Order: sequence, then C-alpha cells, then structure tokens
Amino acid sequence: MTTESTFINLMRAMASDPAARDLLDDCAVINLGSDTLILTHDMMAEDVHWLSSADPADVAWKLVASNLSDLAAKGARPLGVLLGFMLGDDSWDRKFAAGLQTALVHFDVPLLGGDTVTNRGDKRALGLTAIGAATCTPVPSRSGARPGDFIYVTGTLGDGLAGFELIEAGFDEVGPLAIAYNRPEPRLCEGQRLAPKVHAMMDVSDGLLLDTERLASASKVEIAIDLARIPLSPTYISYRGDALESRMQAASWGDDYQLLFAVSPEIELPVAATQVGHVGEGTGLSLYEGERRIALPPSLGYQHQ
Amino acid sequence: MTTESTFINLMRAMASDPAARDLLDDCAVINLGSDTLILTHDMMAEDVHWLSSADPADVAWKLVASNLSDLAAKGARPLGVLLGFMLGDDSWDRKFAAGLQTALVHFDVPLLGGDTVTNRGDKRALGLTAIGAATCTPVPSRSGARPGDFIYVTGTLGDGLAGFELIEAGFDEVGPLAIAYNRPEPRLCEGQRLAPKVHAMMDVSDGLLLDTERLASASKVEIAIDLARIPLSPTYISYRGDALESRMQAASWGDDYQLLFAVSPEIELPVAATQVGHVGEGTGLSLYEGERRIALPPSLGYQHQ
Repeated sequence: MTTESTFINLMRAMASDPAARDLLDDCAVINLGSDTLILTHDMMAEDVHWLSSADPADVAWKLVASNLSDLAAKGARPLGVLLGFMLGDDSWDRKFAAGLQTALVHFDVPLLGGDTVTNRGDKRALGLTAIGAATCTPVPSRSGARPGDFIYVTGTLGDGLAGFELIEAGFDEVGPLAIAYNRPEPRLCEGQRLAPKVHAMMDVSDGLLLDTERLASASKVEIAIDLARIPLSPTYISYRGDALESRMQAASWGDDYQLLFAVSPEIELPVAATQVGHVGEGTGLSLYEGERRIALPPSLGYQHQ
Repeated sequence: MTTESTFINLMRAMASDPAARDLLDDCAVINLGSDTLILTHDMMAEDVHWLSSADPADVAWKLVASNLSDLAAKGARPLGVLLGFMLGDDSWDRKFAAGLQTALVHFDVPLLGGDTVTNRGDKRALGLTAIGAATCTPVPSRSGARPGDFIYVTGTLGDGLAGFELIEAGFDEVGPLAIAYNRPEPRLCEGQRLAPKVHAMMDVSDGLLLDTERLASASKVEIAIDLARIPLSPTYISYRGDALESRMQAASWGDDYQLLFAVSPEIELPVAATQVGHVGEGTGLSLYEGERRIALPPSLGYQHQ
C-alpha cells in the first residue's frame, strides 16, 4: 500500500504551476486577472472517514463542511460544489441526498454539478469539489507567519474528539459533542473577516498541534503553543475535565474545523478567537504549559497513512 | 441499488442555481462578471470504467481526457485539474502517477491540487475535477439547436469500440484502435474554434445516437442522423467493414470523445468535421440511411445504470 505522503510527493513533482502552491496548501489559488479563484477537492472513504453505521446525512454534511472549511481558511466566498458520488444502497443514497440538501441550504452553497458512478466494490468513496472566490488578495496561505506574531484559534477544540468517543461507545448521538463531531460548522464568515488581517491561516482539520507544526514548517518559523490556553467548551470540560492531559488530547485530535492563524500583535481582531501561542525565530513546534516547557506527545494529530 | 438517473433526479431537485444548468449539461458554467468559468467533475470506478488488468497509465490518461472533453464541448481553455485518488497497490499507484504526468504534459494542463484517501474496500474509485475559462460567451450548451441547422461531428467514430473489443479479446494493445480506446484525444482546440459559431455542442462520450437524442431533447427539436454519413477511419473499416451494421455500431457506442454540434448551414466551419444530420421541427432522434428511414436500435449508446 502506497502511503499518502509518498503519493503526494509523486504529485508534487508535477504540480509546478504557482496556482498549485506546491500542494502545501489546502486549496489551489488561480489568479485570473480580475478574479481570484479558490479550489479544493476532498474525498471521504467508508471505514476511513465514516463508520458504515453512520447516518448518511451526517456523511453528506461532513463532506460539504470539510471542503468549505478549506475555503474558509482562504477567506473565500463559496460559489458552489460538485459532487462525485458512488451509488449503492437505495435507502442510504436517499438519506445522503436529503442530508446534502440540508447542508447546502444551511451553508447557502449551490450544487453545480458532478458525477455518479456504479460501485462494483464493497466500500464507497465520495468526493466533493468546492470552488470559491477570494474576498481579498493576497489570499492567506500557511506560509507567512512572522516572528513576533501571535497564534490564535477560533472556537473551541476537542469537542469533535469527545463526540466521536461518545458516538463510538454508543452513549450519545444527539448531544452537543456528538453534533460537534457529526455536523461541524466551517468558519466561513470568520475566514472572510480575518483574511485581510492575518499573515498566515489554515483550518484545524488534523489536530491543533499537527496543523501548527505544518504552519511553522511552511512559514519557516518556530511556534510555541501554550496548552494552558487551549480553548475548551464547558461541555468538553464536564466530560473530560480540563487537566493537562485533557488539553493535550483536545489539541492533538482532528475534526475541529476551526481556523488557526498568525497575526501581528497590533492588529485588532475582527472576530472572537483565543491566543494559544506565538511565533519565534527558530523552527518547528514547541509546547508549554504556562512557562513550563513540555515534551511533544508521540502523535501531534491525525496522520494520514 | 439506486440507479444513476434516480440519484441525478434527487440532485437536480436541489441544483437550482443557473450555473448548474439543471445538471443537463456536462459542465457547470459560473459567470463572475469579467470571467466565465467552466467546471466539470468525472469519476471512474474499477470494473466499471476500467478493467482491473488495465494499464494504470491508461486509466490516468482517460480520467484526464474524459474531463477535458467536457471542457472542449464548452470551448473552454483548461486552467487545471484537481485529483481525488484512492491509494492502493504501490506499483499501480506509481504507474498511475507517471501516466498522469504524461497526460498532463501532453494536454499542457497543470495539476493544481486534490486529495488522497486510503481504500478499505476491494475496488477503487478515482475522481478528477477540471476547471477551464470560457473563451467566448455565451458558452455553448446542449440546448440551442434550431430547425434548419446542420449536425456535425469531428473526427471518426467507432475506433474506441473496436479498440475495446481487440483489447478485451487479447488481440491488440498497441495498434491505432487500441490507442483510440486507451488514449483518447479530447478536441480542445476544435472546441475553442467552434464555440463562437455553433448553436449547440456536446462531446460524444456515450455514443453518437444517444448523445444526439440528448441534444435533440435539450434543444426541443428533432434531429435526423444519416448513418451513411457516419465518419469511419480506414482502420475501423478494415476491421469491421463499412456496412450498415458496422456504421450503426460505430454510432451507438461510447468512448469517442469527439464533438457533436449544431450549426447554421451558412457558417463556414473553422475545423474539419463531417455533416451527419440535420435539425427539424419535430422532437427526438430519427435515423436514416441516405433517404431510407431506419428503426432506432434497442440501445442508442452507453446507458449509465
């Protein structure tokens, strides 16, 4: 089995167009002169991104939300989506279609096209392409964080993790944590307001620590994260507490779909966000609890295989 | 198992944005004011669109070519593609990557991004999104053919069919017919030259007769096709002859990737093409051999399930 990183390296060798951003970003950015387009394509596979027992409407929501979250990180205004759908069980397909409509209405994003194929295998894969228009240029990227910048994150972290645990254990499917996992809200509005102000931005899809390390690497800077500052929801705290271990887990799991960004300390933020760290002259990620330096955990987040 | 037409009807109910063109077209057309974008997403599934024994480089080529053919039918200039790839056997993946690069270099189209996912199932599915810029407006659609128009097709038909038969029978993998099947050439240049002149245009991906019926239906006209005029290559004729049966088969099989278009008889064509029919006041498809009316065959082309 090819690893994802091996294959992406094969792709990177041929992605020399500047719009591809060396495949280091979540989106392609195409400058057309008067318009700048943002394009992203995310896939989801059965038993990888969703359990076979999952509600098809939740799968549809997450497929839309994960793509729109990539657009949010670019400050883009969504123009529409194209669906790549693998046909299967009739009841599942109808629930998926209804869930897709719910999600598209919720996010006010039109379905523009796509394709359907028959499935001869035992598992499904789905794909979605989202296209957006940049609302400001230059379009934020992962590179651009500067020493002295503050690192912020929108919303709270860890709710998706807690929701996944509760759903998998069969304890909860309708509470706020389960909803956070099944129906994430990409930060489209926040992204558009932040885009003109930030030095670098990305969405937190694979865990704050892993994504921060990627931001640091792309920007060639050091980013120090203070675990004491990790924003946790009251529901998360009531479920797992707010001790260091709990904060560490909230910071090293995916499915948050918040925005992580680097901004000059002088900037007045146009949206609510929590400062979780700052940028220094070194390289890579360093971890603190207040003043105390902490070792990095073995896994910084969700590593694709 | 949901049928493709059932699912597309579910999708159509939510695709109310004008850019979606009621999902009756092969592409979405987004008007941004100064730019007009063309977007398409085609999927391919193992054992549906390619045999497990197929050369992965040919699969990559066809994935690119089938999407670019949709852009060609809109007269679009390709801006780039995004790949949705399902990881699997390492050797297959590397051959696919090399084949993808060959195709992208051949068509001079950049890879802009995409996604890879692990496969937990026994079959693969791949998706590609192609984006292009319109080279003229209005962008041709399937609707717009007018009574009195002539119906033309570029190139020759049936070579892909013959190639598929030869490959499946193990007779040929490198001859011109096998190449026509494995390495189709989307008519990008022809599409751009034709777009300002035609009343309606589409690519012939599912068979001339089936696609002509779709053009007639979208345009609310009758189209008469003369089988005596179906353009056949010398290689196809030497393989299957040019009797009526052979012409009928060439006109009712997919994988041609030629352009089918309706144009006023007064227009001087900017590219080589063969007149295969004309547009009348009625509805639907009618079939002739010269002056003689012929019954429609049971299957007009490749019907997706």
